[in-house]
Amino acid sequence: METVHVNLGPRSYDIVLTTADVAGLGPLARNRLSASSLAVVVTDANVAAQGEAVQAALAQSGFRTAAITIPLGEAQKSVDTTCRIYDALAELAADRQTVVVAVGGGVTGDLAGFAAATYNRGLPLLMVPTTLLAMVDSSVGGKVGVNHPRGKNLIGAFHQPAGVWIDTEFLNTLPDREYRSGLAEVVKYGVILDAEFFEYLEAHREPILARDPVALRHIIARSCRLKADVVEEDEREETGLRAMLNYGHTFAHAFETVGGYGAWLHGEAVAAGMVCASRLAEKIPLIEPTITERQIQLLQAFGLPTASQPAWSADALIEVMRRDKKAKAGKLRFILPTRLGRVSLFDDVPESLVREVLATP
Amino acid sequence: METVHVNLGPRSYDIVLTTADVAGLGPLARNRLSASSLAVVVTDANVAAQGEAVQAALAQSGFRTAAITIPLGEAQKSVDTTCRIYDALAELAADRQTVVVAVGGGVTGDLAGFAAATYNRGLPLLMVPTTLLAMVDSSVGGKVGVNHPRGKNLIGAFHQPAGVWIDTEFLNTLPDREYRSGLAEVVKYGVILDAEFFEYLEAHREPILARDPVALRHIIARSCRLKADVVEEDEREETGLRAMLNYGHTFAHAFETVGGYGAWLHGEAVAAGMVCASRLAEKIPLIEPTITERQIQLLQAFGLPTASQPAWSADALIEVMRRDKKAKAGKLRFILPTRLGRVSLFDDVPESLVREVLATP
Repeated sequence: METVHVNLGPRSYDIVLTTADVAGLGPLARNRLSASSLAVVVTDANVAAQGEAVQAALAQSGFRTAAITIPLGEAQKSVDTTCRIYDALAELAADRQTVVVAVGGGVTGDLAGFAAATYNRGLPLLMVPTTLLAMVDSSVGGKVGVNHPRGKNLIGAFHQPAGVWIDTEFLNTLPDREYRSGLAEVVKYGVILDAEFFEYLEAHREPILARDPVALRHIIARSCRLKADVVEEDEREETGLRAMLNYGHTFAHAFETVGGYGAWLHGEAVAAGMVCASRLAEKIPLIEPTITERQIQLLQAFGLPTASQPAWSADALIEVMRRDKKAKAGKLRFILPTRLGRVSLFDDVPESLVREVLATP
Repeated sequence: METVHVNLGPRSYDIVLTTADVAGLGPLARNRLSASSLAVVVTDANVAAQGEAVQAALAQSGFRTAAITIPLGEAQKSVDTTCRIYDALAELAADRQTVVVAVGGGVTGDLAGFAAATYNRGLPLLMVPTTLLAMVDSSVGGKVGVNHPRGKNLIGAFHQPAGVWIDTEFLNTLPDREYRSGLAEVVKYGVILDAEFFEYLEAHREPILARDPVALRHIIARSCRLKADVVEEDEREETGLRAMLNYGHTFAHAFETVGGYGAWLHGEAVAAGMVCASRLAEKIPLIEPTITERQIQLLQAFGLPTASQPAWSADALIEVMRRDKKAKAGKLRFILPTRLGRVSLFDDVPESLVREVLATP
């Protein structure tokens, strides 16, 4: 068992990493939430078995438990589904100590987390991510929320969990494409913050692809630590530091919007987005081509895309990037690498360079 | 112009008290929110004139302004109306710097505040309360939220405003009954925290009832300061300290529930609730009858009720009190005075005493 401590003063918490030890969650929850008697597990049909195992572990440690099963899919990340969770919590007579336990991927964590943030002005939240993407990204950092027809995650809050429980065994049943998609965010942490970690990933492609528990715990723990370092410095996205986590994401958001959600998984879009951003950094020029090359090699080894698709119009992609919520006054802003393990924000990047990058196969 | 500073570290803000100076809000907002360009005024038809004056003041200081008018009434404090505000904010292309300005009473502040707390993970909020109750209570302390069919304010958040602007002139047009209802919470601060302030209220009944601006600014400033002192110590209702603000409210909640919303205004229910709590303290015994007598005298001078209504069944009232969200395991818990200016929490008060108090005319 490894622990990553997220230091946020009174909102500090631990991320616990383990393998095939879901029963361990019970004592942790009991210890951390001594005043709580009821635990409500929010989950979806895809991870019903994991949800039941979590419920059993909590019951073993003296919690009364109940489950709320949400329908599958990104479309469920809505105010309407949040209201269904409110109704269920009210039906269960949830009080201020009732623990919400999110068992699932990013959608479940964001949605259950938002319900927890806003029911009774905030219920304690345990995150039990079951996808690699949720383990290394959405379950760390306190961002919770739902979509609005006008924008992804437009309705939301910062609500730090009381704890995050990561059991790498949950990844055994994760479909291959989803697993590889999660690796894109892992690679991202190496590029933006930690050259040594990037080298570890290059050197351990095989155990990582084989989902070796030791390799998994290492890459997840390191990713969580790197994200936590950033979140500790800029918890509420106020200083600009947290923006570095968006490396590759301005392009990715455009790919997802123009391609339509479903064309690429989020991590696939991020992989191609990182390569585009890195090529942009070459053209400015900020870095040597070798830094881009190494990312391409690694991402391709993980079966991830590394360029835009020819069918997607550059005009359409650029229009989305100009409207990006991180853009200011329609300018093209990107997080770009200045060397391996370091990125900076660049404002007002010339559109011609962005077009060149989008056209590179 | 007087200022009450609420010290909450990075979430600190000022409550500014003034009379007939709505134009002053513009420079304050500009100074406090230098990065903001758009200000969205949320208001209702009852205070359309004040809303327009606030918009004009903000426009004068360089804000683009827009208004969202919500329908009247407590029934509007819902997730549905919140979604209408989300839609309007999205339509206006609100970004993270867009200021939400709540101009109105408690419903508007709670609702607009909740929308501000959850749109884009938190927009800056200015509170411009137009009722005495909102000035001395709901606009201070950061509680925002909406009702759920199963509970008042069940959905909500803690979201501190960037500033509160109180113009006592807004009270000139407030209906008499609403004004007097607000005085109940003012009296409450004297009883729970400040005997000297209670004596000031006793000595200044006439100027207070005449809405004299000097008296108004004093009683509002002192009430805000006293509430702020409590909020500074227990921002998120975690230590139990903030519970003292609920003096009279366990009874009041029962009166409002059994009487039906609309029978009594909130402040009227609180007035009678405080007298019941004080009588309870006598019976235990914690205090001399004179402390109750002085509250009765003062509240009656302000035209407020000081006992339950005979038509309301004690059984029904007690049942609500046992189900109160502040109750634990069905026990009767009350905030009770131990002397003038001091209260404590008492657990497990005998039901027989509560019945005696409810039967006292």
